[in-house]
Amino acid sequence: MQARMNDIFEPLKGLLPERYLNRECLQRFRYDDILFYRLKKDLKGYPRGTVFWQGGMLHGFQRIKRILNLAEGIRRHFPGRFYLEEKMDGYNVRIKRINSRLFAFTRGGFVCPFTMDRLDELVRVEFFDRYPDYTLCGEVVGPENPYNSEPVDYIDEDIMFFAFDIKDREGRSLPLTDRYSIFRETGIQAVRRWGPYTSSDIDMIKSVITELDQQGREGVVIKSADSEIELKYVTLGSCIRDIKATAALFPELPGGFYMQRLIRILAIVDEFGIKLDEETKLTILDSLLGPMMKTIEHLRRGDQLKEFFRIRVNRKETIDALIRHLKSIGMNARVVSVERAGRHYLVTFYRIYTRGARIMRKRLTGQGFYD
Amino acid sequence: MQARMNDIFEPLKGLLPERYLNRECLQRFRYDDILFYRLKKDLKGYPRGTVFWQGGMLHGFQRIKRILNLAEGIRRHFPGRFYLEEKMDGYNVRIKRINSRLFAFTRGGFVCPFTMDRLDELVRVEFFDRYPDYTLCGEVVGPENPYNSEPVDYIDEDIMFFAFDIKDREGRSLPLTDRYSIFRETGIQAVRRWGPYTSSDIDMIKSVITELDQQGREGVVIKSADSEIELKYVTLGSCIRDIKATAALFPELPGGFYMQRLIRILAIVDEFGIKLDEETKLTILDSLLGPMMKTIEHLRRGDQLKEFFRIRVNRKETIDALIRHLKSIGMNARVVSVERAGRHYLVTFYRIYTRGARIMRKRLTGQGFYD
Repeated sequence: MQARMNDIFEPLKGLLPERYLNRECLQRFRYDDILFYRLKKDLKGYPRGTVFWQGGMLHGFQRIKRILNLAEGIRRHFPGRFYLEEKMDGYNVRIKRINSRLFAFTRGGFVCPFTMDRLDELVRVEFFDRYPDYTLCGEVVGPENPYNSEPVDYIDEDIMFFAFDIKDREGRSLPLTDRYSIFRETGIQAVRRWGPYTSSDIDMIKSVITELDQQGREGVVIKSADSEIELKYVTLGSCIRDIKATAALFPELPGGFYMQRLIRILAIVDEFGIKLDEETKLTILDSLLGPMMKTIEHLRRGDQLKEFFRIRVNRKETIDALIRHLKSIGMNARVVSVERAGRHYLVTFYRIYTRGARIMRKRLTGQGFYD
Repeated sequence: MQARMNDIFEPLKGLLPERYLNRECLQRFRYDDILFYRLKKDLKGYPRGTVFWQGGMLHGFQRIKRILNLAEGIRRHFPGRFYLEEKMDGYNVRIKRINSRLFAFTRGGFVCPFTMDRLDELVRVEFFDRYPDYTLCGEVVGPENPYNSEPVDYIDEDIMFFAFDIKDREGRSLPLTDRYSIFRETGIQAVRRWGPYTSSDIDMIKSVITELDQQGREGVVIKSADSEIELKYVTLGSCIRDIKATAALFPELPGGFYMQRLIRILAIVDEFGIKLDEETKLTILDSLLGPMMKTIEHLRRGDQLKEFFRIRVNRKETIDALIRHLKSIGMNARVVSVERAGRHYLVTFYRIYTRGARIMRKRLTGQGFYD
């Protein structure tokens, strides 16, 4: 069914083929005085999360392929030189100056009120004074963010921003070395990097991975020095932490989520010749079954499934805006407490998971079901 | 799109609404001199696996709901008396006399050449002499069957048939006590049963489950004495054995398969107040990760993913017919050896898993992928 173009999409004429100017593809939202339109799904040439506004657009952030075997993956994909950049576990943000104001867009193409509130503290605006047309892409990382409640070993509280890409006006990534020199020159904190390497440096690369794992880090994105090839590869520890951080929410996640991480663990164990001793095995199993068991006990007693978050904001209005934003992306959240903490407000809130939890609760209280 | 009725479905006119007489719903196949038509999907009033032929039909076997919590499930669903019948781990067969000959249909509605070959040894034909219009439903169980390679603790070799239902001409199940007396009278081996119970007998029922678990059995189907309610419930051990028996085939199975079994394990542990000691935990993890690891090593080396089966047949022709049958249901199988074993031929064959295995092999040899 081809939806008719609606008047509300008029401002986008010329930015996107007319057949896409409809509610199936685009969602309109206002942030302050600007009307934005986010692409709700991948279209040819325009990834999901691409954002449009009167006279402008920002490409969605590219998806990055994963490799399960580091050495084979590198040999297969990188004939030339490449860098390793640390892959950090937070949420992806694209920062762009529009009408002389900075905006932070999430992966899905929303303006995140929380990130907006903290933006001045996260990045140096000098970057945008010098490069007003560029988009700065990076990860907001830290234990106090509204999207992942997973702890981060190397940040005690609050959040930080780590850049890993710079896009030009047309949405093309700058060559790696140009990015690196702009990060240096503008004082933008970038993710850690190693290299350049070639595929004959596998042993060195493996020891970088081993060290990252020992430091409790997530992994790397391997980036070609002279093409646009990017591949991600994660550490054994990060797979276990992923399981542990999400196992309590198992009724909400597809079963494949956990299997994918177990497969990654075994591929690493296989490639690195790691012996899975009983302690590691029990750590893996407890990471999965421990939180699952707690959730099963909760739900069998009829309790709700909640996940708690804590964040710091500058403006009290941000709290409501964030809760509304979370609601608009399908998350049901409630504020527990707001207190002063230095120049910030410290906000505790929780997400309530209803859909999967309701089904699981019914099953645990005796309802029959087909599977 | 409504498919036109094809001449080949002419013989079914009057048996099934005309709008279903097409290739999307029905698959025609010949067994000896009879043309059968199996229903490929659930239709209103006709479950998948329903079989038709000129002048007759056999209803598909009903799907049975599962409960995760035994006591709550029983209290919720059984106001009156009920029996427990042992749920056995094999494959479901409906046996019916058509034109004075016995036919064995699998769950999907195929005539299984292997079961046909062994039918006289599996059931007493006296049943059908006395009740020519009835359908005998049961499970073919044993380590030497062509569908599950999982070992069965209580049968060393070959297969046996255990009945659990009798359907009349219209496809309705006979009342439980009628079934039980017909089984006794005709000497048909039925699955074990306990009861009648009421929901106040939970402790007794729990000890039946515990005993079944200690005997390495799969579980029970709980059947109302005076209505058609049936619910299945499995033992902790059977969940672990399921994982162990299939974990090597993980590239072919949905990730949810393993999570479902882990959820069942935890629901049992929760309800029965079982303490998951380190030994049990390691057993669970090794059941999953052990076979997965072997498969990962295999596939990374470029090997194929195979599952071996051994069966006994009376007629050499059965072997070819079975391999063709397996192919027709999407299984690629190859015979390894055929040797005489008493009055039977002992056949070893393997299934080759290609689709999921190919994808996983590519990933383990370095190919990048989106997930």
